[in-house]
Amino acid sequence: MRTNPFAHRGPHEDAPVPLAPGPEFDLIRRFVAGQAQGERADVRVGAGDDCAVVAGDGIALSTDMSVEDVHFRRDWLAPEEIGWRAAAAALSDLAAVAARPVGILVSLAAPPDDAGDYAARVMAGCREAAEACGGVLLGGDLARSPGPLVLDVTVVGEAPRPVLRSGARAGEELWVTGDLGGAAACVQALLAGTTPDPAARERFARPQPRVREAQWLLAHGIPTAMVDLSDGLVGDAAHLSAASGVAILLVPELIPVHPAARERSRAKSLRRALGGGEDYELCFSAPVGAVLAWSDAFERTFGVRLSCVGRVGGGDGVWFVDAEGHRRPTGVEAWQHFGGGAP
Amino acid sequence: MRTNPFAHRGPHEDAPVPLAPGPEFDLIRRFVAGQAQGERADVRVGAGDDCAVVAGDGIALSTDMSVEDVHFRRDWLAPEEIGWRAAAAALSDLAAVAARPVGILVSLAAPPDDAGDYAARVMAGCREAAEACGGVLLGGDLARSPGPLVLDVTVVGEAPRPVLRSGARAGEELWVTGDLGGAAACVQALLAGTTPDPAARERFARPQPRVREAQWLLAHGIPTAMVDLSDGLVGDAAHLSAASGVAILLVPELIPVHPAARERSRAKSLRRALGGGEDYELCFSAPVGAVLAWSDAFERTFGVRLSCVGRVGGGDGVWFVDAEGHRRPTGVEAWQHFGGGAP
Repeated sequence: MRTNPFAHRGPHEDAPVPLAPGPEFDLIRRFVAGQAQGERADVRVGAGDDCAVVAGDGIALSTDMSVEDVHFRRDWLAPEEIGWRAAAAALSDLAAVAARPVGILVSLAAPPDDAGDYAARVMAGCREAAEACGGVLLGGDLARSPGPLVLDVTVVGEAPRPVLRSGARAGEELWVTGDLGGAAACVQALLAGTTPDPAARERFARPQPRVREAQWLLAHGIPTAMVDLSDGLVGDAAHLSAASGVAILLVPELIPVHPAARERSRAKSLRRALGGGEDYELCFSAPVGAVLAWSDAFERTFGVRLSCVGRVGGGDGVWFVDAEGHRRPTGVEAWQHFGGGAP
Repeated sequence: MRTNPFAHRGPHEDAPVPLAPGPEFDLIRRFVAGQAQGERADVRVGAGDDCAVVAGDGIALSTDMSVEDVHFRRDWLAPEEIGWRAAAAALSDLAAVAARPVGILVSLAAPPDDAGDYAARVMAGCREAAEACGGVLLGGDLARSPGPLVLDVTVVGEAPRPVLRSGARAGEELWVTGDLGGAAACVQALLAGTTPDPAARERFARPQPRVREAQWLLAHGIPTAMVDLSDGLVGDAAHLSAASGVAILLVPELIPVHPAARERSRAKSLRRALGGGEDYELCFSAPVGAVLAWSDAFERTFGVRLSCVGRVGGGDGVWFVDAEGHRRPTGVEAWQHFGGGAP
């Protein structure tokens, strides 16, 4: 997973870990099962959100692992891009709770031949991503790998008022930042051996965690629940649904498909935008009308558009909804590391 | 490395990262080189210590990666032991700054065949180690590995008064907890295809991070500088030396060699105890007489002995010293992941 869902339950919650269905999340539920649930003043937010939040002041923590030939291929990316992507994926989890980044810790396992320049360039990319979000390199670990390059990035941020996945209420609107499917379009081109569209490649190689955007939204009192889009909108919205105990109703016509992800078949474009993953945009719920009052200012400030993509309804699960309010299955699967599903 | 040395410099320091010499640490110095040094109220302790410490109240953070066939072999350890060891190594970094553990985040990359029971058992070992130290599983990540099992454990603790590596002063005593060389004796037996001594195996498979011991020492105002022993006393004392700007003078006759690590040749025993690594004991400096006043109480409380192993002198480096105060090279090398040296 690209989020941070298998944590200790905070003192205020006692339910099972509210993650979406799926074999990967079943495994995570198993990891956490039976963990002592006692009241801990030092754990404010635990399982099932993008970050854990600890300590009285709210320190948000999340970790994100990138493995060669699983999350990236060396022939597709420069070492700086490998580092940037790994760090950006983790920083995006801070954005998802509207935390202010303090820094990152980077563990790097590298084959001995890559322990010099190559490792230094990967690390430079990590640092660059952290610094772009106002954080610093706080520490890490360095190990030898007998095979793949492995990067694990832990992010640390201040989140006195974390925006959780559990705050969505029926009747609210559902919004996303930016365009979806660009990274997936790049990956598809690379897999097909063709040259990706430069804009799509940029989305894949240099994703922009929406850290400042999230803090702005929080400062304007907008999001009631938030998640970042690492596994695709359908998959990540399922976490909002599970954590908030609501249904997520997507209007397919409203999904902002990245220009480079558009196909002649609208259905194909949508599958990319909804299931492709690695967009690292934000998806959040907000009271009706709360976003419209501020969307121009947001777009002027960040040059990133906001799109209403549907609404929050009663029930559970993630659905397509039509103008009459009829729900139908999306037919889109989220990426699962174990147990199939693919972008 | 097993420590957390390549962090951003805290606001009060501007020197290069004060790590011991060595190719691995050269690489880390390179990672950090040129990082903006500006004053950050949110980063209290950065590079060159066992943990970074962030936020006003002092949140200690460190991360420690374990890679199959580098740090452990599956035929040597049960999956629970693999998890315990990985978590204990990271928790030991919290002990090194006398932090109180809040929890751990565990990233696990596993081949698809191990993503069920095996992964759950590894994670159970991680949790067990965290819970034994008063912490909980706070989160993590789960990824597919094309090859080795890789575990990265990030530890989070409260450290309002962290004990750093930089506080040792010439004239002070140098102490260690417990016995040294037991884990190395186990590894040597396993490598030789013989059955390890059960006590040595316990030291290797279930190392005990000295978390509560460190907090006790801090509460009694004892340590002026501290480090945990992951790479062997000589290697880790070199970090104390570099960070404090002092020489570490070891008296070979005083080194507490683990019973299972003793050989007929005293020199061989010493090499194990000083260079073997993975003991996860603590090494700390203290004013003359400060420990003796409390050592009985410590040993009664924890069942762990304290040994004075030498003293802090002027100059730099780590030396053997004789009764006349003559310094000579130790002839022991610390483990280096890149660039040779071995336990």
